[in-house]
Amino acid sequence: MPRSRFLQTPVEPFRVEPGLAPEEILARLERISFQGRNLGVAYRVWRRMLADRDLTIFLGAAGALSAGGLRLVIAHAIANRYVDCLVSTGANLYHDLHEARGGRHYIGSPRVNDATLQEERVDRVYDTFASEEEFVENDNWIAEFTLTLEPRPYSSREYLFRLGERLWEETGADGILTAAYRGAAPIYCPAIADSSICMGIAQARHIRADAAHIDVVADVIESSNLVIASGGTASVVLGGGTPKNFINQAIVEAEYYAPQIDGHRYAVQIVTDVPHFGGASGSTLDEAQSWGKVSTDAAQVTVHADVTVALPLLVSALARTGAEGAQARGASRIDASGRDLVIDGRPVPHQQFEE
Amino acid sequence: MPRSRFLQTPVEPFRVEPGLAPEEILARLERISFQGRNLGVAYRVWRRMLADRDLTIFLGAAGALSAGGLRLVIAHAIANRYVDCLVSTGANLYHDLHEARGGRHYIGSPRVNDATLQEERVDRVYDTFASEEEFVENDNWIAEFTLTLEPRPYSSREYLFRLGERLWEETGADGILTAAYRGAAPIYCPAIADSSICMGIAQARHIRADAAHIDVVADVIESSNLVIASGGTASVVLGGGTPKNFINQAIVEAEYYAPQIDGHRYAVQIVTDVPHFGGASGSTLDEAQSWGKVSTDAAQVTVHADVTVALPLLVSALARTGAEGAQARGASRIDASGRDLVIDGRPVPHQQFEE
Amino acid sequence: MPRSRFLQTPVEPFRVEPGLAPEEILARLERISFQGRNLGVAYRVWRRMLADRDLTIFLGAAGALSAGGLRLVIAHAIANRYVDCLVSTGANLYHDLHEARGGRHYIGSPRVNDATLQEERVDRVYDTFASEEEFVENDNWIAEFTLTLEPRPYSSREYLFRLGERLWEETGADGILTAAYRGAAPIYCPAIADSSICMGIAQARHIRADAAHIDVVADVIESSNLVIASGGTASVVLGGGTPKNFINQAIVEAEYYAPQIDGHRYAVQIVTDVPHFGGASGSTLDEAQSWGKVSTDAAQVTVHADVTVALPLLVSALARTGAEGAQARGASRIDASGRDLVIDGRPVPHQQFEE
Amino acid sequence: MPRSRFLQTPVEPFRVEPGLAPEEILARLERISFQGRNLGVAYRVWRRMLADRDLTIFLGAAGALSAGGLRLVIAHAIANRYVDCLVSTGANLYHDLHEARGGRHYIGSPRVNDATLQEERVDRVYDTFASEEEFVENDNWIAEFTLTLEPRPYSSREYLFRLGERLWEETGADGILTAAYRGAAPIYCPAIADSSICMGIAQARHIRADAAHIDVVADVIESSNLVIASGGTASVVLGGGTPKNFINQAIVEAEYYAPQIDGHRYAVQIVTDVPHFGGASGSTLDEAQSWGKVSTDAAQVTVHADVTVALPLLVSALARTGAEGAQARGASRIDASGRDLVIDGRPVPHQQFEE
Repeated sequence: MPRSRFLQTPVEPFRVEPGLAPEEILARLERISFQGRNLGVAYRVWRRMLADRDLTIFLGAAGALSAGGLRLVIAHAIANRYVDCLVSTGANLYHDLHEARGGRHYIGSPRVNDATLQEERVDRVYDTFASEEEFVENDNWIAEFTLTLEPRPYSSREYLFRLGERLWEETGADGILTAAYRGAAPIYCPAIADSSICMGIAQARHIRADAAHIDVVADVIESSNLVIASGGTASVVLGGGTPKNFINQAIVEAEYYAPQIDGHRYAVQIVTDVPHFGGASGSTLDEAQSWGKVSTDAAQVTVHADVTVALPLLVSALARTGAEGAQARGASRIDASGRDLVIDGRPVPHQQFEE
Repeated sequence: MPRSRFLQTPVEPFRVEPGLAPEEILARLERISFQGRNLGVAYRVWRRMLADRDLTIFLGAAGALSAGGLRLVIAHAIANRYVDCLVSTGANLYHDLHEARGGRHYIGSPRVNDATLQEERVDRVYDTFASEEEFVENDNWIAEFTLTLEPRPYSSREYLFRLGERLWEETGADGILTAAYRGAAPIYCPAIADSSICMGIAQARHIRADAAHIDVVADVIESSNLVIASGGTASVVLGGGTPKNFINQAIVEAEYYAPQIDGHRYAVQIVTDVPHFGGASGSTLDEAQSWGKVSTDAAQVTVHADVTVALPLLVSALARTGAEGAQARGASRIDASGRDLVIDGRPVPHQQFEE
Repeated sequence: MPRSRFLQTPVEPFRVEPGLAPEEILARLERISFQGRNLGVAYRVWRRMLADRDLTIFLGAAGALSAGGLRLVIAHAIANRYVDCLVSTGANLYHDLHEARGGRHYIGSPRVNDATLQEERVDRVYDTFASEEEFVENDNWIAEFTLTLEPRPYSSREYLFRLGERLWEETGADGILTAAYRGAAPIYCPAIADSSICMGIAQARHIRADAAHIDVVADVIESSNLVIASGGTASVVLGGGTPKNFINQAIVEAEYYAPQIDGHRYAVQIVTDVPHFGGASGSTLDEAQSWGKVSTDAAQVTVHADVTVALPLLVSALARTGAEGAQARGASRIDASGRDLVIDGRPVPHQQFEE
Repeated sequence: MPRSRFLQTPVEPFRVEPGLAPEEILARLERISFQGRNLGVAYRVWRRMLADRDLTIFLGAAGALSAGGLRLVIAHAIANRYVDCLVSTGANLYHDLHEARGGRHYIGSPRVNDATLQEERVDRVYDTFASEEEFVENDNWIAEFTLTLEPRPYSSREYLFRLGERLWEETGADGILTAAYRGAAPIYCPAIADSSICMGIAQARHIRADAAHIDVVADVIESSNLVIASGGTASVVLGGGTPKNFINQAIVEAEYYAPQIDGHRYAVQIVTDVPHFGGASGSTLDEAQSWGKVSTDAAQVTVHADVTVALPLLVSALARTGAEGAQARGASRIDASGRDLVIDGRPVPHQQFEE
């Protein structure tokens, strides 16, 4: 008998059997070590989020996830309410729009000659190729769409809802933007200026000087008010970046005006960055507790893995086991379709913090 | 005699001698292998940039570089024209402001209990601590400053110039924002919404609804016009993130309106991310060539190292050897002090692309 | 229609469905990007190995895989002939022996105080704990076993076969060593001196000066002769380290004496190290081609992922789809039970290379 | 005034000045954050080791450090007694021998076609090339040398001393093996079987069956006895791998026979691996404390950096500031020139542990 209090729960070596379902693999992974364990824990924590009804679940998406083939996984998570609010880099939304409009990404290789690609106007994202001409055409489409909007400031959330609406009307295609539009789920893109979406927006202003105002300050206020209006929050962060910090910053800002606000009750992050270089993408969820971004008694786990490996497995398992939980969550309390975000029928201001 | 054409230039084992100066260490590193070699090459490429007079040199700064103790290194690089234009995350500018205003970051440890830190209102960034109360006080100061501005949209560049001006007037302290102010050097912060600076700005709007409009679309247009007006560009990227992409996106957008524009002639990046997970931060400079962001005949090198290790060594060496080159560059052609950016006495529009 | 030859095969966004089996998930991953794609390709390449009958498939195992909960996955792969020959670090075999003898590893945490663990004699491997006393007891058991052997030099392969035999007789427990014993599959441990197994062996010599001679030079000769006697080779490398190089070195040595030998026909590696620091663990399979270790027309893929995430998924899928292929391979041609390794009934010398 | 006890010692932003010496750069790095700080601390800890006279300082060397251009840095550290005992992978010793014999490594690129290199018989190590023919010639030279030795078992330490002796006699060249020979400093290579040195040794046995016995069990016993005979130990680990564990294992084994033995008093490691995948290379020095490998009150630091960046800077600084300390250490107490290792004139057994 081991004597130490530290020697309580044995690792259960993973036992291979034919016909294991993804959720059974994840349950067994939880009993082993290292990142396999963390992936198994992430699955369990995500399921617990779905059973905690009043929660607003944020999904942060950074990295080339749409180009990487995960746009329908994220769309599935939005459509089935595994998450309530997406915070994304512009690139993921742009590449989603690209495919919704019929463009494709192509299987390529990181070992080709990039000068040759440049000559052929092929843009590379690691092992994936796309047509530069099709991208230029997207930018024009975004510019044209932007010119159809009434010329006034738009939060990125309102702008992206309208973009998803137009995309759905024109293509009827599945994807991130269209799933969010159809479910009236909010998408924030705090770094929209750093993306091809904003290149299209800028081209609209080139044509009409009063067009194309994105009011990112409204994003900051509205997202904090969303935290204040929620009965608690959770975060699932894919890849770090601006979405990770924006989701956490909303907590910090909310606490300033509404001191009763606590950090996220649940936090899962799937990242490849590491903590020891000091950047926010790789920072631990423990560190986030020092700031109050994550509650000190939160269920939290970091999985150090490529999102393209971890997310399809997690969401495939949730598609069976989480469906019930997601259904029990009922209809979303959030309506992102108007100039003001609406929660439980009540508008959430974007000009003033709620106190 | 080796027969293959691949066996031409021998590695010269690093020979230790007492009294080597940093520039001599870097010159010897260039003759060894792996990241030592790349660091040596980065030093040589940066020196070549300084000798290429008409160049606009962009510096991208992501990661907690100011909290990490590098704000005076970056300020030195701006003040001595080792670079012409900074693109930064908000955090680096916020932490710079924090120290300029007399706040401090503190030597800490990643192994403390974060719940205890949270109780004591100490915010952790890996091994570094700061006072949350002081941060709250900064936010208020930013809000107050923002309310002094005429209520109209500001590009992040114009806003940050004014912020640096106020900071210099009030503190006379060295730092990034004040060095840029004093040299009228532009700073862009495309993801300003994802930072404590924007929390302060949002608090200004909370007080006065028509205040605090940041026009990030203007950043996109102005930065492209800056590329078009330059006689060539170079980039030094620290840590990836939104600055890396924004600097490259300016090239892509410039090429759309001015097809004669070529990619960066010189490109140095110091990153810890890796290419194989597909994210932009870790992407290679070769990949950037497929997009036309970096010229296919550019002098380019990636150093896989923590910026806190690599940058002090590089800039310490440049302080001796690069000083002459920087001086030869003469006064900057760029004036970032007005509503419009001015190059060679000519305003650069932020509402329309130059064609 | 895209015009470039580089834009041929579209990425197929992963489509989530309830009830996907692991092999279906892997097949869909192969059509997306980044490490998900590579994991899907690894699965297909491993299946192709199983269909290529005359192949000797090497499995390299580095990293704390047994402590990490993968010993039964590796044992399953050996027992079902997904692989023919294991090359391992000593730690993986030692921790396997520990569990076969009834010891356990325990679920722990990387955030405990290690000084406290030290007081309680708990040894930590990242998030996993074990009893130091039990480890001491294992060392004694290994010393006693070693003293039962006739005092002469043993290749690590012969020694480990005898160790597995004793373990099976005493425990009847599943595991790596016992699976290899029961299938007479060879295990090499070239760095056995750097492990607790060798600590036990050294303790045997402490008791009897003529005991405990491990002849690692025999390992080098025998493994090369195994390559020469095979009708082709493949490698599945988990985690790099000495096993990765030893498996490749056997090819290089074989080519010296038998120039007709080609590199591995198939090569899969699952690693977390990266190439750019120059170490062997992270080196690419392309680099291995320059040395002739991997054939220039090999089917090869590197998956950058934690083995505890990737391997259970791969082997769970193979348990269904690969079973047929493995069965078609028939009985192993290799018999590792004697002083000489035997292939197809013919002894493989360990004192002389075959020419 | 900050109120928390955690806010005591401010980070001092790195201030650039022309003419900073390496030791001044390191002293300033110690006051900043992240890996810069750790590198500065490593420098201070190494200097403290040199002032602690009775210490035996182990240097572990893994990764392609010799091919990478660091063989003369390591040789300098041995010759000047910055370290007392080297534990190395075989590759580092083999590549050192290659250059001592007049071979070269060449500046190459990771982006060439490896099939072309293979045709031209050029072997690649990331961005560095070498001639395969010259390597074959080295193997033959090692085989011939091995045949000159009396046919009996040799510890790797004794074998490598003899190899260095022959190399010095034949070439008079500076390097790792020759510096160790000239200073009678011990080199252990526990994984010698996994290297080209052992390929040469195996070729000797091919010629004469009773030749070429490496007794790695003797290495285990002798290295533990070296720990027991020392007045305390320190470790400087470059790159992890088998040397890291072997240096620590010697402590664990020593404690078994001599319970008064404590872990290393000082520990510095420069690694690129990370802890969270569970492998030994990336494991923390805290984790090593749970095992008793590192004393719980040791001065210890991990630097996450490429050795080719960090080591030249550290040793260049030590060449000035450490020289005094190293001189004060006096002549080495260790004599590695005989069949038995000798400390303070007393032989250290390799057949029995000292109790």
